[in-house]
Amino acid sequence: MNHQNYEQSNMYKIRHSAAHVLAQAVRVFYPDAKLGIGPPIDHGFYYDFDLGVDAEGQRLSFSPDDLPKLEAEMRRIIKGKHPFEYREVSYDEARQLFANDPYKLVLIDGLEENGRLPSIYQQDDFIDLCKGPHVEHTGQIPVNGLKLMNIAGAYWQGDENQPMLQRIYGTAWHNKKELKQHLHQLEEAKKRDHRKLGKALEIFILDEEVGPGLPIWLPNGFILREELEKLAWEVEEKAGYQRVSTPHIAKEDLFYRSGHLPYYKEDMYPPMEDESGNYYLKPMNCPFHHKVYSNKPRSYRDLPLRLTEYGMVYRYEQSGSLFGLLRVRGAEQNDAHIYCSEDQLESEFMAVIEMYKHYFELFGVEKYQMRLSKHSKAGLGKKYVDNEPLWIKMEQVIRQIMLNNDVPFVEEEDEAAFYGPKIDVQIWSAIGREFSLATNQIDFAVPERFDLQFINAKGERETPLCIHRAPLGSHERFIGFLIEHYAGAFPVWLAPEQVHVIPITDDHHAYADEVAKQLKVAGIRAFAKLGEDRMNSKIRQAQQMKVPYMLVVGDQEVENQSISVRQRDGVKHSGVELSEFKAKVQKLISERSKVL
Amino acid sequence: MNHQNYEQSNMYKIRHSAAHVLAQAVRVFYPDAKLGIGPPIDHGFYYDFDLGVDAEGQRLSFSPDDLPKLEAEMRRIIKGKHPFEYREVSYDEARQLFANDPYKLVLIDGLEENGRLPSIYQQDDFIDLCKGPHVEHTGQIPVNGLKLMNIAGAYWQGDENQPMLQRIYGTAWHNKKELKQHLHQLEEAKKRDHRKLGKALEIFILDEEVGPGLPIWLPNGFILREELEKLAWEVEEKAGYQRVSTPHIAKEDLFYRSGHLPYYKEDMYPPMEDESGNYYLKPMNCPFHHKVYSNKPRSYRDLPLRLTEYGMVYRYEQSGSLFGLLRVRGAEQNDAHIYCSEDQLESEFMAVIEMYKHYFELFGVEKYQMRLSKHSKAGLGKKYVDNEPLWIKMEQVIRQIMLNNDVPFVEEEDEAAFYGPKIDVQIWSAIGREFSLATNQIDFAVPERFDLQFINAKGERETPLCIHRAPLGSHERFIGFLIEHYAGAFPVWLAPEQVHVIPITDDHHAYADEVAKQLKVAGIRAFAKLGEDRMNSKIRQAQQMKVPYMLVVGDQEVENQSISVRQRDGVKHSGVELSEFKAKVQKLISERSKVL
Repeated sequence: MNHQNYEQSNMYKIRHSAAHVLAQAVRVFYPDAKLGIGPPIDHGFYYDFDLGVDAEGQRLSFSPDDLPKLEAEMRRIIKGKHPFEYREVSYDEARQLFANDPYKLVLIDGLEENGRLPSIYQQDDFIDLCKGPHVEHTGQIPVNGLKLMNIAGAYWQGDENQPMLQRIYGTAWHNKKELKQHLHQLEEAKKRDHRKLGKALEIFILDEEVGPGLPIWLPNGFILREELEKLAWEVEEKAGYQRVSTPHIAKEDLFYRSGHLPYYKEDMYPPMEDESGNYYLKPMNCPFHHKVYSNKPRSYRDLPLRLTEYGMVYRYEQSGSLFGLLRVRGAEQNDAHIYCSEDQLESEFMAVIEMYKHYFELFGVEKYQMRLSKHSKAGLGKKYVDNEPLWIKMEQVIRQIMLNNDVPFVEEEDEAAFYGPKIDVQIWSAIGREFSLATNQIDFAVPERFDLQFINAKGERETPLCIHRAPLGSHERFIGFLIEHYAGAFPVWLAPEQVHVIPITDDHHAYADEVAKQLKVAGIRAFAKLGEDRMNSKIRQAQQMKVPYMLVVGDQEVENQSISVRQRDGVKHSGVELSEFKAKVQKLISERSKVL
Repeated sequence: MNHQNYEQSNMYKIRHSAAHVLAQAVRVFYPDAKLGIGPPIDHGFYYDFDLGVDAEGQRLSFSPDDLPKLEAEMRRIIKGKHPFEYREVSYDEARQLFANDPYKLVLIDGLEENGRLPSIYQQDDFIDLCKGPHVEHTGQIPVNGLKLMNIAGAYWQGDENQPMLQRIYGTAWHNKKELKQHLHQLEEAKKRDHRKLGKALEIFILDEEVGPGLPIWLPNGFILREELEKLAWEVEEKAGYQRVSTPHIAKEDLFYRSGHLPYYKEDMYPPMEDESGNYYLKPMNCPFHHKVYSNKPRSYRDLPLRLTEYGMVYRYEQSGSLFGLLRVRGAEQNDAHIYCSEDQLESEFMAVIEMYKHYFELFGVEKYQMRLSKHSKAGLGKKYVDNEPLWIKMEQVIRQIMLNNDVPFVEEEDEAAFYGPKIDVQIWSAIGREFSLATNQIDFAVPERFDLQFINAKGERETPLCIHRAPLGSHERFIGFLIEHYAGAFPVWLAPEQVHVIPITDDHHAYADEVAKQLKVAGIRAFAKLGEDRMNSKIRQAQQMKVPYMLVVGDQEVENQSISVRQRDGVKHSGVELSEFKAKVQKLISERSKVL
């Protein structure tokens, strides 16, 4: 999502206005409700309320029954077409207007501390402290595009020492169709929830004793990882990469040199304090690859040098933000660093962009967006290396490369890496949910800090540029995406179990075993299911595990030395020659086909 | 090396006696030399001396010229056939005898503190504080099996706050032939030094800024690792293993449960201190595999469950003991854990032993020794879980398995893992140097701590046993071994670069490129060397990199669409069909052949 664009959009105004209307509606049923804040968010809005305490001092809360009542009241207000009226007010007037809203008074104090004047928006008889923007009148909020979703507790200002307020979430869209589509997507996302499927398909587990955000990959998950690594290496080998492998820790000296200390410190695990100097877990692989670069003298003939590593990095994400595989603390990145001269930059950068597109095609990613993430002036010397002219130059270099090659992109400030600007890639899953995938970065700062050099064609020393790239993101993020994208029904080449051979009775065990063996020898992940369960139960299990092919074998198949194929998608074929099936599956695997 | 056996051997006595003779010889040239200690060691002995200080207060040292003089004097003493005479003495008498040897007085104080009586050995006019054992008389020291090797500084009692003494190292053998063999081995080992070859062949680097004992694998090293992992998985897949992947860190809770805290704490990196609890780098993979085991209910039908992972573990080895790849702080282990019932133990244990033997055969390891490493009574509750009867029982179980299957082994106390006894495997390289490879362990303690269970055939809960095994050791240790074993001339399947295609002049570049491409498509690591260097220089480079095959192509080869093959071992073939060469190399690779 491009936030600059979103905040300027009509959708944003609609959602913001709906939040105000929600607050007005709440006041109808709960006249004494104290108001927190009510901002628009992705897909909708929320508003926080303090409903006070009951006779026993228990904090009051909404009941789910309130939602339809509030929704009806919101519709009534919307139909009133009340204009949203804007006015700047003095601190005193603001304090008078919100004298009964202690949370608003805190906000007004904050405005005054920052020297910013308060402003209000009024619709009907409801006034809110707000800087906008809003639609012109409540009638512009699509009355059929609106739905209150759920109630949650939320600490005032996100601080657990503050009171717990009642938050109502709503969603708002241009019309009924968009709303329905969104609700459908939510329902699908729930069914495809990678945490639920990840457990059911035995892909990964999380364990409190190991630690939050540190997935353990089960055998099925290992196969997904391995297939992705195989794919990546096939693509990268053709593109002239070389693989390396580097440790997960290093002395702090390395990270001071790279600039991760201090620029990236808050994203790193705490140090291991040793008398010989502190050690840190690596949050990125780059400093180690720089060491590979510098281990011998380089000439322009060695460039571009492309070093790749599926390398595990550790980042200390806030525990509240951790989410299954999608936000973790340990991530195995499809990482590489390309060292090149300035005149090689465009072709190397574009080769990476093309590599992204190749993967999108392969995985059936139809919607994606590239975003040029830039520095912010305020962050120079804090989040970003302190060299504004070079930032502006390198941002223009990327912009020009993208324009030269007709790659559509948007731009956003304050989203760069600390060492340079980057292209961030967002992709949308089959059900239209958005994922941040990976980045393509130009590093103009760190190679110099590592004294990286090459002798150019004129015999002079020169510092290379470095492209950081990770088209397949990390295993964690990408497999999280794939689980949702495919709803766990992976294409054959990825499926951890590709074939279950299911005997109809015990008499057919030997043949089932023989069939599975022949398929295994052919490189197919086939399993003879010889357990005590009945055939139907085995078929059900295979379907639950989303195994692409079930081969059912009974008297007839034994007699004809054939198989009956039941595909995951319901298609059936009987009397199939094993060799024919084998050849077909081998072809699908080697082509990484999307079909069964 | 089995130390119990060694200490009872005649070789040990010879070396010990040679040390005394060395000290006697030193006193001839340096009458005032103060004596430190002089023990036998692997392959020989040493003795430490304090030669006092010169007029400027500089500590005096031996010169290399002293060694031949001392050797000659030792021979003279040996020929005197002076008996070694043993006597126990009182503390007082000992202090009188060594009144001029301050270091011996410190040792005598130590004996007294521990309530142990001093004893002395005398040969000729030389008396040493010593508990023996020695040969009967100096004439039993083989006069031609002896050589003084070098001089080094060594702190008294290994303490850097104590004086630096002068240490003379010697080697001693039964006869001249053995001595020659040892000296040859040393020379070979120097040529084959894995640190030197590791750099020359671009296999790995160590970097101070990253930290001691943390190798970075260069592209050639990566290929060695990958080939070993491929091999391991081929072998393990056939043996019914499943792969998992687990994080490198965990909360301390996990390691308290596993017992690594406190039993293994001193081998672990310091903690990362976090307010949510401390994190540690994993020193072993087992606790994580136990989590995979316990993530769902298991029945006896699921056993044996064999979980494998090339998993990176971090152990805080003393910085002084680090040595290239052979002793590191981060090691990627060929690790697996086999969960089984008691009646499956023997066959599973033996399958692992057989796997070892399969690898020895493949790598041409002709000499190896298995050692049953047992607990020590004194270590119970400290280094070892505190359950003596179970130790004795499980040690007997392993002993019996080894006997049942006619596997020769030795036994040694105080070498077990903290959770159970193990078979340690030593191997000898092609030049006869000994390496500790890996272990095969039975864990009777930790599965219970993790509440691991399965439902047995009677429907009861039962705790599985766990075999820890790592037949290929770690990449670090094993590749260190292989570099020496093959002197860097790896068999074709392992060689990072298998073929260099070398054009005679620029006119042959296109053909060379085409040849390399065809080989690459066939899965052979072939490189067309199209740089500006002359052909002879390219051949020299290929020889330095120990590339198995150089294909030289010129007019004749282009005309006949053939190649000329120069093997690393000097064998040449001209006019070879490319398809013939390709088929031959593919076959050698797929068979992991030892020959070219």
